[in-house]
Amino acid sequence: MSTKPPGGTRDFLPEEIRRREYVVRIVRDVYERYGFEPLETPAFENIGTLLGKYGDEGNKLIFKILKRGEYEASREADLALRYDLTVPLARVVAQYQNELPKFFKRYQIQPVWRADRPARGRFREFYQCDIDAIGSASAVVEVEQIAAVNEILTKLGFADFRLLVNHRRILTGLLEVSGIAAAQHETALVALDKLDKIGHKGVEAECAARGIEPQKTTSLLEMLRDIFTVPLDGESSTGLINTSRLESLDNFLASTAYAGAVGELRAIVRLVGSTPAAERVFVDPRLARGLSYYTGAIMEVAVDGIGSLGGGGRYDNLIGMFLGRDVPACGFSLGLERIIVVMTERSMFPATVARGGVDVMVTIWSDEARGDLLTLAAELRRAGLRVDVYPESDKLGKQVKYAASRNVSFVAILGDDERARGEVAVKDLRTGDQQSVPRAEAPQFIARRLNPEP
Amino acid sequence: MSTKPPGGTRDFLPEEIRRREYVVRIVRDVYERYGFEPLETPAFENIGTLLGKYGDEGNKLIFKILKRGEYEASREADLALRYDLTVPLARVVAQYQNELPKFFKRYQIQPVWRADRPARGRFREFYQCDIDAIGSASAVVEVEQIAAVNEILTKLGFADFRLLVNHRRILTGLLEVSGIAAAQHETALVALDKLDKIGHKGVEAECAARGIEPQKTTSLLEMLRDIFTVPLDGESSTGLINTSRLESLDNFLASTAYAGAVGELRAIVRLVGSTPAAERVFVDPRLARGLSYYTGAIMEVAVDGIGSLGGGGRYDNLIGMFLGRDVPACGFSLGLERIIVVMTERSMFPATVARGGVDVMVTIWSDEARGDLLTLAAELRRAGLRVDVYPESDKLGKQVKYAASRNVSFVAILGDDERARGEVAVKDLRTGDQQSVPRAEAPQFIARRLNPEP
Repeated sequence: MSTKPPGGTRDFLPEEIRRREYVVRIVRDVYERYGFEPLETPAFENIGTLLGKYGDEGNKLIFKILKRGEYEASREADLALRYDLTVPLARVVAQYQNELPKFFKRYQIQPVWRADRPARGRFREFYQCDIDAIGSASAVVEVEQIAAVNEILTKLGFADFRLLVNHRRILTGLLEVSGIAAAQHETALVALDKLDKIGHKGVEAECAARGIEPQKTTSLLEMLRDIFTVPLDGESSTGLINTSRLESLDNFLASTAYAGAVGELRAIVRLVGSTPAAERVFVDPRLARGLSYYTGAIMEVAVDGIGSLGGGGRYDNLIGMFLGRDVPACGFSLGLERIIVVMTERSMFPATVARGGVDVMVTIWSDEARGDLLTLAAELRRAGLRVDVYPESDKLGKQVKYAASRNVSFVAILGDDERARGEVAVKDLRTGDQQSVPRAEAPQFIARRLNPEP
Repeated sequence: MSTKPPGGTRDFLPEEIRRREYVVRIVRDVYERYGFEPLETPAFENIGTLLGKYGDEGNKLIFKILKRGEYEASREADLALRYDLTVPLARVVAQYQNELPKFFKRYQIQPVWRADRPARGRFREFYQCDIDAIGSASAVVEVEQIAAVNEILTKLGFADFRLLVNHRRILTGLLEVSGIAAAQHETALVALDKLDKIGHKGVEAECAARGIEPQKTTSLLEMLRDIFTVPLDGESSTGLINTSRLESLDNFLASTAYAGAVGELRAIVRLVGSTPAAERVFVDPRLARGLSYYTGAIMEVAVDGIGSLGGGGRYDNLIGMFLGRDVPACGFSLGLERIIVVMTERSMFPATVARGGVDVMVTIWSDEARGDLLTLAAELRRAGLRVDVYPESDKLGKQVKYAASRNVSFVAILGDDERARGEVAVKDLRTGDQQSVPRAEAPQFIARRLNPEP
């Protein structure tokens, strides 16, 4: 029998969990400082809650759970594994409408399951990391989400990212101005979403293949290029670039029903100027975001040479699906799995994360000394150190070798000589140095060397 | 359509998550300081990994997942939801045997799923919280686990718990001495495990009903009482009580094959004396623990009037199930769900956990002021405060009322007057006090009042 985890899933060994925890802790800490509160929902939902919510393709990718007990013989499914964090949120908003605050801001970091064909970087069990703010149509909502995401990426150590913003109705307006019929907007947006990867020619080919007249696509792409391209005289600040692009959008859409959307985007960009994200945010008229449920502003984190690390936007018609009425909502989903992959490739984790899970290993000399060694371990732990005790009486060299193989930083040795002098021998496995210190000072001695003052 | 979570599962709203996180953080922190490292496994396993591992009853309670895509029509299951954390650990130990350290100590805190009939306090999705130490038969292993659990319960604020220890082979010896046949040991232990609830008479009745001659059960129970009862002269310390019980055990088992087990238990009790758990540990010959897979020491956390909050023991024949050879192992499972229930009932959570997820709410006066208010929010967040911004321009009274309803501690008001003076009005919603402070000092002003020096 295979002992591998099921296809498309992963076992997370300690080293990997330390990396994941490091990222999740920063994400949660920032979201909490932005007033988001945690929510968790069950791993499975009643099957009717999920079926029909993700389109035909989605339905096929849902993991379904067989009825149990006397009903198992029916071979029917009554439950299904969580497929995303948005439908459960919509259910929660309906179920607890009298308990939740008027403006409900939640973050949710939980696994979801999709029966996709496993591939490099594509899993059947993976974590989503969503924030959503429900109940307000104010631009403050988008701006706070942009500011939070900016702070997360900055704290994680990303230096080369941009926060792109656009507006779903601006896209609709530009499609209309290009002469593309409303029935073909979805097709055009799906193609436009791939502009980065397939270029102008690719978008034109895909649109043509799906029945959009070539000159309309060309007109759209040229218009987008005109808006995107800002004439540089001297240096162009982020603010000047955005002002120019918003003016171009005004020019193209002034006489249409979509002028208001430009106003909404301008309000967001202006407010962002009052936050630490000011220099990161760029109006990008080409940003499409695949999902058809967006109704207002859309946003995305772009990293040079990497692509998107997450995105989101306003979607005012979705979260009320179980309430039977529209509820204003805006959300952002960070690509947690992708962020961890990129940070690993770029060695962005601090040394403390790589160092391993144990700061000090206490060696065991003899069975008689074990009690004293456990007391020493307790003393070291009281100082906050992560301490392992080698469980068996074994040759010292073997114990030290074992500690080194586990990436332990220090070994504490309490031999007969040390004990007679009231000392502990402390070996720094990172440098090989060994030094005897008074036992009472050993915890602080090690703690200081682990976290030297900056 | 119902918007409730599926039967036996729960949505965790922010307040509940804060309580759970508080407990989990202490558990993890202590286990890490004891050298345990985190492990996570997928929510589902290949169905063959789980079937047959939990007995006939267990098999029925496993949630099974239908095959997908072209195989869905077969109505067969190929995956099953995690049922406990021990079988996945055994799989991991086999799969990564060349990567894992010789002494692998892991903690794992993840949900498991069992299709039990839902009832008060019994869920179909619940968290397990396990530590296991694999690879050593040394008593140091048991002692370190006992010390860690003692530290966790102490840190959580439990003052009235005892850590009971016994040894599976001591029980076997006492059963043998009582004349109960080996084939009936399992039955007797299952009954004995309920001694607390059903008393001597109940155990005797259950054993009799299952074919054990009454005088044998009576003899067992009397022997257990004799061992348990320590003649008190003056004050009896924990150490004296345990010494007396171990001596009684020696007397009953000296001439049997089980004398060694008393020696093992004595070694554990003696070593515990060198740890902070010394005064908490009591030899209890009546402790049976239901699970038949224990092979050595067994242990349990007992709280007066509450019962067990967790338990564990040594089980040397289980973790190697996928390896094809025995591997020494010892584990402890904390009853996380039970601990949270008890702590909630006893109001054991600190005020910071009850206070809510937002420290300060910034009010919004007017659309023009929004930029400045976002800057103020950024200043407050930089000091580590959890800050929410009321998203819309609304009447101040309404905003303050909203903040109060959300259990927010402070409201920051930046009206025209305050702005002109470079100040912020800070209202403490806990006391009703309002005070204007220089804007630059506002973050520290609030932070100090939230966490006053002791």
